[in-house]
Amino acid sequence: MLVRFVGFGLGAATLTTVAAASDNTNADVLISPLDVSSFMAEPVTPLSTLVKDKDDMKVKMEMLIMKIQADFCRALENEEDPSTTFFVDRWTRAEGGGGVTCVIQNGKTFEKAGVNVSVVHGILPVDAVRQMKARGKELIGKELPFFAAGISSVIHPSNPHVPTVHFNYRYFEVTQENGEKMWWFGGGTDLTPYYLVEEDVRHFHSTLKKACDQHDAGYYPKFKKWCDEYFLVSHRNECRGVGGIFFDDFEMHSQEDCFKFVKSCAESVVPSYVPLVKKHKNDPYTSAERDWQLLRRGRYVEFNLVYDRGTKFGLYTPGARIESILMSLPVYAKWEYMHSPSDGTPEAKLTEILKNPKEWI
Amino acid sequence: MLVRFVGFGLGAATLTTVAAASDNTNADVLISPLDVSSFMAEPVTPLSTLVKDKDDMKVKMEMLIMKIQADFCRALENEEDPSTTFFVDRWTRAEGGGGVTCVIQNGKTFEKAGVNVSVVHGILPVDAVRQMKARGKELIGKELPFFAAGISSVIHPSNPHVPTVHFNYRYFEVTQENGEKMWWFGGGTDLTPYYLVEEDVRHFHSTLKKACDQHDAGYYPKFKKWCDEYFLVSHRNECRGVGGIFFDDFEMHSQEDCFKFVKSCAESVVPSYVPLVKKHKNDPYTSAERDWQLLRRGRYVEFNLVYDRGTKFGLYTPGARIESILMSLPVYAKWEYMHSPSDGTPEAKLTEILKNPKEWI
Repeated sequence: MLVRFVGFGLGAATLTTVAAASDNTNADVLISPLDVSSFMAEPVTPLSTLVKDKDDMKVKMEMLIMKIQADFCRALENEEDPSTTFFVDRWTRAEGGGGVTCVIQNGKTFEKAGVNVSVVHGILPVDAVRQMKARGKELIGKELPFFAAGISSVIHPSNPHVPTVHFNYRYFEVTQENGEKMWWFGGGTDLTPYYLVEEDVRHFHSTLKKACDQHDAGYYPKFKKWCDEYFLVSHRNECRGVGGIFFDDFEMHSQEDCFKFVKSCAESVVPSYVPLVKKHKNDPYTSAERDWQLLRRGRYVEFNLVYDRGTKFGLYTPGARIESILMSLPVYAKWEYMHSPSDGTPEAKLTEILKNPKEWI
Repeated sequence: MLVRFVGFGLGAATLTTVAAASDNTNADVLISPLDVSSFMAEPVTPLSTLVKDKDDMKVKMEMLIMKIQADFCRALENEEDPSTTFFVDRWTRAEGGGGVTCVIQNGKTFEKAGVNVSVVHGILPVDAVRQMKARGKELIGKELPFFAAGISSVIHPSNPHVPTVHFNYRYFEVTQENGEKMWWFGGGTDLTPYYLVEEDVRHFHSTLKKACDQHDAGYYPKFKKWCDEYFLVSHRNECRGVGGIFFDDFEMHSQEDCFKFVKSCAESVVPSYVPLVKKHKNDPYTSAERDWQLLRRGRYVEFNLVYDRGTKFGLYTPGARIESILMSLPVYAKWEYMHSPSDGTPEAKLTEILKNPKEWI
């Protein structure tokens, strides 16, 4: 097998594999490109490995999340001032693997936009194994070899009329002490508006439902409910936002079917969210509305630091890249003692929905 | 015994007990006042109980923390614009007890100043008992009757040249299943500057040391070290501030000796901190310095929401008063991806100290 690198640099790389077929009747058919030219940076795994193992789920997932990252970042850049582009930070992890973190800070449309890919492997520490067991994973052994590839993103727009979005899709492999390999997928996309525009929330949920329905009509209702339950700021008894979908330990079918479902979900991020940015990014707003946005961002920080499993898992994992984990936090957040919106205001209307999640479609 | 109420209203109450002595040779000597007139609000426990049980440690602690709250609030008000005074919020807890929360928000000197007293009792839930066991407390039983009285305070000044201070002093009683009662004290005071002024830090530590030394020359070094270890933002490998003192499970001596030590510590808060406010509250500052202050406040939020035992204990306790717990959070906080101060700047000098805590006296 011959590996050819074309235009290989930070931010753009094309990799083509040419099968060294002896019966070279139609060379074009045998050229099977792994197109990485549009990616925000060179993938984490060496190109030669990506080509060699291209049918391995580890590689398929890395290729998917690098592509999703690039598509999402480009779509967001289209909504920004032309002078604002993503800062691309490719990093490696001493213990194995690395990632690509893309960030916009203090843009015109996006106060903070973070889109992070990580592809890491090594030995899962005892605490992390314990945490997985605690949530029902049956893992045999204490310190286990693992592989994890995921994309995670939080977008905090400048304008309070544009909602915040979060999504995360990940693939996990753990090899148990007895040599048995376990794998599963997890992920979700959810929306956190500052002001409730019901048709926007319906658009968001419908787009996710369409992605789910392609695979199983039971997925959307199940994962919508899971999302409402997961993103609960329980000390305030209110949801973080208006939900979306959330799932974990996803391994019910063939690996390929699971992957296709995750791919559909990840591909629905741009159509579910970007139209809302386009629609509201130039809405006029008052300083009182900006203030409300900052107070709600304080609640976002509370959820992420107190409850979010991914954040906690990251903060307690040695060698984790803190800046990529805490990239989810807003530039500015605010807390006010005993703040409560007045009855009948748009702020009260949102609060009401956060306390009583509803069906949107 | 005769109980007389004088000037009894929210924010000021005087309670005098007059012994109905038959041999009333010197009535003045027999008048033993429990002076509550200077308190920010009526104490949590009914005045009649306070008088009846005035030698009980529960009452002595409540009286102490109500007094400390009033003294500290008045001292802070002296540094404020005359139009700014503490908002006093007296609350009750359905499960037993209550508290007095005093807050200044968006003052001239103090962006947020919170001083909270709580005096609560009831049944300690299983999770809370477990947490105490986890940290080494030997408690027999599952759900145990408890009493807790404490004062806790965080002051976030407006001017970045004035440090943030936090203190907390508390008394705990738990009755075990076998009827045996356990008690202990805990607490501490610590400083979080945005800019390092070494003589200020020495003044702060010296004042705490003096309070400790009155009781045992070994206390300051021991509790100073404990403070550095406790207030560690471990995912960033830096301390929250320049420390102070911290102790828990304090029960080495007679209850009375312990109380006297805690009293000395609590009484050292005003002289350790208020002179620093007075000295710097009118210092000129730039918007870059304000920005740095907000970034450091982000780290403060990280510590409080991710690690602080008191906050976590509160957030997970049913019926806890969330607003009084999260009163410790600043009005504004900020996060920036990969922010790092340039070499040789005052910001870098502070960061260096936070990564390598030192002896100040």
